[in-house]
Amino acid sequence: MRVCSYIMPNGTRSYGIADGETLIDAGEALRGRYADLRAVIAAGALAELGKDAGGERMALSDVTLLSPIPNPDKILCIGLNYMTHIKETGREAPKKPSIFTRYPSSVVGHGVDLVRPKVSDWFDFEGELAVVIGKPGRAISAANAYAHVAGYSCFNDGSIRDFQRHTTQFWAGKNFDGSGSMGPWLVTADAFGDPAAQSMETRLNGEVMQSTPISDLAFDVPALIEYISTVTELLPGDIIATGTPSGVGLFREPKLFMKAGDRVEVEISGIGTLANSIVDEG
Amino acid sequence: MRVCSYIMPNGTRSYGIADGETLIDAGEALRGRYADLRAVIAAGALAELGKDAGGERMALSDVTLLSPIPNPDKILCIGLNYMTHIKETGREAPKKPSIFTRYPSSVVGHGVDLVRPKVSDWFDFEGELAVVIGKPGRAISAANAYAHVAGYSCFNDGSIRDFQRHTTQFWAGKNFDGSGSMGPWLVTADAFGDPAAQSMETRLNGEVMQSTPISDLAFDVPALIEYISTVTELLPGDIIATGTPSGVGLFREPKLFMKAGDRVEVEISGIGTLANSIVDEG
Repeated sequence: MRVCSYIMPNGTRSYGIADGETLIDAGEALRGRYADLRAVIAAGALAELGKDAGGERMALSDVTLLSPIPNPDKILCIGLNYMTHIKETGREAPKKPSIFTRYPSSVVGHGVDLVRPKVSDWFDFEGELAVVIGKPGRAISAANAYAHVAGYSCFNDGSIRDFQRHTTQFWAGKNFDGSGSMGPWLVTADAFGDPAAQSMETRLNGEVMQSTPISDLAFDVPALIEYISTVTELLPGDIIATGTPSGVGLFREPKLFMKAGDRVEVEISGIGTLANSIVDEG
Repeated sequence: MRVCSYIMPNGTRSYGIADGETLIDAGEALRGRYADLRAVIAAGALAELGKDAGGERMALSDVTLLSPIPNPDKILCIGLNYMTHIKETGREAPKKPSIFTRYPSSVVGHGVDLVRPKVSDWFDFEGELAVVIGKPGRAISAANAYAHVAGYSCFNDGSIRDFQRHTTQFWAGKNFDGSGSMGPWLVTADAFGDPAAQSMETRLNGEVMQSTPISDLAFDVPALIEYISTVTELLPGDIIATGTPSGVGLFREPKLFMKAGDRVEVEISGIGTLANSIVDEG
């Protein structure tokens, strides 16, 4: 099942099921019970969506997609989690997951423009697999971790590289408003299956920039959930962006950064393609 | 004016004004208009609190204090912002503010126990001045920054040092549930005046561990607001913990960490004292 969040042509925020080019909206009754997709997931009520939900059918192209979870409590990003990327940065492989955070204001949906800020032209892409938490938990063991996953999505951890390098902490390069994206939808865990069986490709203007099997993750999804939940409780709707493989623009010769008019795509087998164009900050 | 958030003996979450040992509660009518202190600040309505608010008077000791802003959109913490602390870590002074984040679940109020997790005994204190944003803004200039400040509070950026050192990113050491604190109240900006005129002291079991004039900040409050708002919009209720001076337990000889039964205090002139006892995770 493909679940998305969006703004309808009349301005209403809603959520529903993507079925090919069609959207089956949750409808008013369901929205009355669950204000948003995060609330649906928290209630374990994803099965209430779909053809019996009572909402209207519309064309996917008629709505403005949001990040599938536009208002998560946490967006936890993993740095340096593919050996190919660790090597290109010249760093040592971390012994534990390297974690920084993004605020939701930095993440837009599929088809929405990414914003290159005025203060930098070092705007880079990072294709990633995102995990969405379904069931809350603290101190979750790796063996139990998949029971806490609601689904998966594509993630572009868009990065302002000069700001990322201002200090040892990545925050400043990872939180510019509208600089990253997630979508187009959340694919439920049952439909996606084993992440390690899938692969990911990032393209800039149609040219392949990054290509990796997900099985190359240094810390896999269960290991990430175990580590993070040692520190803090994971909540329904929390997002873990699992890290990017080699091929980012910063380490190319010459460096390659995104500029207005470019189109960046992150495709993951079993999910689909997250595509965004770039605009300059107005 | 000293403003605080708390849980009343009957379980109701509220907010009000601290006046000596007394609390003037906001009362139901005001809570109906503004659900919490963050909403009061966002509405620019702090002046509606106080003796005419309509709420009852009670003893401060009768409520359980929360962090003054228990539900901020952001808690931004500054690493390495006093030269004395930069020197003891053996690092270079950063050329820009070094920023990491805490989630609200890691921050309790004055008088509530801090939790030392089972997985570590490297639980350290960090006394800090916290700034609370009043007026939203992006790309705020340093010259304009104080107009965006609602007030100030004491902050203990409690740190699990071995987790902080797992990777280059500080997140894991800074986000254990209930490991930090803020309070006891927010002192409004008009009452606090110039932060650089104040001083801070951290005590463990009564013994002075850290002592600094706030004027020793490498990046002062306006510089921090300017830098952060270059990246993302600051919102009412957002918290900036401005960094800690030298004297933390990690760099003492021998190392000194907090254990169950200890009492840690952060006192800032013009605000008061934030005190918490330590308990082991249950």
